[in-house]
Amino acid sequence: MPTVSDRIDLLHISPIRRVAGLLAEARKQRDIISFGGGAPSLPPPQEVLDEMIRALREEPKAACGYVGTRGLLELRRLVSDDFAREEGTKYDPENEMVITDGASEGVFTLLMSLLGKGDEVILTDPTYLGFREAAALAGARVISLPVNVEEGYQPDVEKLKALITRETKVFVLLSPDNPTGRVVKDDFVKALVDLSVDHNFWILYDATYRDILFEGTYLKICSLPGARDHVAVTGSFSKEAAIPGLRLGYVMGPPAVADAVEKIKQYTSLAPNTLSQMAMIKFFSNDVKQRYLKTALPTYKARRDFMAKCIREYLPEAKLSVPHGAFYFFVDMKHYLDDMKRDDKDFCNRLLERKSVVLIPGSFFGTNAANHTRVTFVSEPEERIEAGMKAVAGYVFSFTF
Amino acid sequence: MPTVSDRIDLLHISPIRRVAGLLAEARKQRDIISFGGGAPSLPPPQEVLDEMIRALREEPKAACGYVGTRGLLELRRLVSDDFAREEGTKYDPENEMVITDGASEGVFTLLMSLLGKGDEVILTDPTYLGFREAAALAGARVISLPVNVEEGYQPDVEKLKALITRETKVFVLLSPDNPTGRVVKDDFVKALVDLSVDHNFWILYDATYRDILFEGTYLKICSLPGARDHVAVTGSFSKEAAIPGLRLGYVMGPPAVADAVEKIKQYTSLAPNTLSQMAMIKFFSNDVKQRYLKTALPTYKARRDFMAKCIREYLPEAKLSVPHGAFYFFVDMKHYLDDMKRDDKDFCNRLLERKSVVLIPGSFFGTNAANHTRVTFVSEPEERIEAGMKAVAGYVFSFTF
Repeated sequence: MPTVSDRIDLLHISPIRRVAGLLAEARKQRDIISFGGGAPSLPPPQEVLDEMIRALREEPKAACGYVGTRGLLELRRLVSDDFAREEGTKYDPENEMVITDGASEGVFTLLMSLLGKGDEVILTDPTYLGFREAAALAGARVISLPVNVEEGYQPDVEKLKALITRETKVFVLLSPDNPTGRVVKDDFVKALVDLSVDHNFWILYDATYRDILFEGTYLKICSLPGARDHVAVTGSFSKEAAIPGLRLGYVMGPPAVADAVEKIKQYTSLAPNTLSQMAMIKFFSNDVKQRYLKTALPTYKARRDFMAKCIREYLPEAKLSVPHGAFYFFVDMKHYLDDMKRDDKDFCNRLLERKSVVLIPGSFFGTNAANHTRVTFVSEPEERIEAGMKAVAGYVFSFTF
Repeated sequence: MPTVSDRIDLLHISPIRRVAGLLAEARKQRDIISFGGGAPSLPPPQEVLDEMIRALREEPKAACGYVGTRGLLELRRLVSDDFAREEGTKYDPENEMVITDGASEGVFTLLMSLLGKGDEVILTDPTYLGFREAAALAGARVISLPVNVEEGYQPDVEKLKALITRETKVFVLLSPDNPTGRVVKDDFVKALVDLSVDHNFWILYDATYRDILFEGTYLKICSLPGARDHVAVTGSFSKEAAIPGLRLGYVMGPPAVADAVEKIKQYTSLAPNTLSQMAMIKFFSNDVKQRYLKTALPTYKARRDFMAKCIREYLPEAKLSVPHGAFYFFVDMKHYLDDMKRDDKDFCNRLLERKSVVLIPGSFFGTNAANHTRVTFVSEPEERIEAGMKAVAGYVFSFTF
């Protein structure tokens, strides 16, 4: 048999994707409480579902037909307006936008567009595990900017400065962050944009969780002086509209960046799903989004607060930073793991096996995050959050005392 | 502004995608007869539409929720069975398959998986324009195997042998082919597999048009001795189910290839669209596919025959080879273009402008295909096929006589 390419050695199967694939099967046999995935347990807005049903009935050929690689102009117009309203910066829907298959394709096509061999990309560590290997696929070297629970996972400007070289080409800013829920502070954002101008690098602003915000305000990074020429944005509709399986998101940036992303996207997926785009045109019309978030956000926030209470009550020695956005706690479990003489991966594996509870090992998210676990608080209702955390504590304490 | 990556210079915006994007807009102003796209004018099967409506009503959270990167196992099982029935070879749905965002993502993830820097990939010339640049993105050098209308676009084994080197890593076999409609002959397939074994290279069998077959039988390439270790398959549901906008296809091959494709797909799109997968589960159940093709194929075939008659009648000096599969004629227009002193691109541009008819310039499909045009015969009904070809002839003859 001929070999596969060496580049495959750079990559690993994401354990979170494995969980997504296996969970459905495992659930047929037993009840599993999952704090593992990144999907909310709420259904999508009814208006969005109704619009897809309407399109399939009234215009099936259009709903199932091809569109251009950048996606439907009407959707780009609406998303651009929505972004301008919230983030204070308007992108041209014709020349500065591409609709993508979620932020996943947005991140991949952007990193392939911005990074070449020998370039350096700076990531906070921990952060979303999708950046690291996608950057490696693009030929770049990953540089880690450590963040930690004691500082609320906020990146430090002086530490960042020390990492910048002539090879620095991209800084990835995910805010609110996955897995830490950290919303980056204004002074960091300002300093970052100044650095990007002074040292001529790109900021990849991943706005996937932009609207999943419990405290604070939108980042408005693109409105800062110099930012229009140094920031490329990607985002997803998966989280805000609760439609991760419809696979839709967007890229915005200077025309040269949108052109590059369109060129790559021709090969990664040719064109975005038409029916999903029709659904999102409805989501961004007639305040459907605003009304949906008015219900969803308080639900998520209540679960966050309840989860914080449970963790503090049942695992008093765990260290946590209450997330201001996104769906996750990133909990420092070192105290318990040391007692148990287990690493985070082993702990999570056994927890699933013995107690049917899913947590994600922290070490998947960076080199600076062993001994942590990611705990999703939106995927289960409150009674199951409590039952799940009790089961975690039951396992931990049975072991150590 | 920082620069974009050098790799973007390898890529061009596909003119066919541009047409898809612009056509919708242009049609608001005037009636355009399009022989340009690769999408049939038939609606998808009613059962498929009904299933999506059912899923959106009865299980909206599942229909809009995440699945694993390889896609739903039930769909993989059905597609594997369907392939085994038609092509005589069974792939393991768990370890040898990945559901992709159309064959586009299938081709891209396969080429990224199989090709590395310095490798050579052999393409028939002309062929689908998506292979060339995707191979370049993977770092490979493209080697052309010329085919021509006089030989019905059949590739020649001796010519192929002369191109094989120690660097040959992949041969791409699209059959039925886009743009030529050529179905490759059995003796070529046998010789190709023997060569792949002797010289240890991969065959990427792109089965996108596998079921759009008017004469002859399925290729059954995977059943030949040695093929299981040397062939990787990709296919699409876009053509056979008339759902190009739902963006779904598959990859099959040895476990190492499926593993590699899954790894790349984590970054290109994370997971396939769930609702589209539910639709295709219905398509591959209860003979829906068989019943649909029983109606669709005779419609396509009648249009092919009618288009052939029109081309021969209105453009008697054009050379054509009647396609045994797929959706296209690839017409040698040299006689007329020489008279007009125009190249194929210029001709197609002006034809759209003056006569509102879309043809695709042949030179987009390779270095060996200038002076040709691709003419889709499935996108318009017969009366518009005749009107369109009359308009083409009107333009050509107004010019040259």
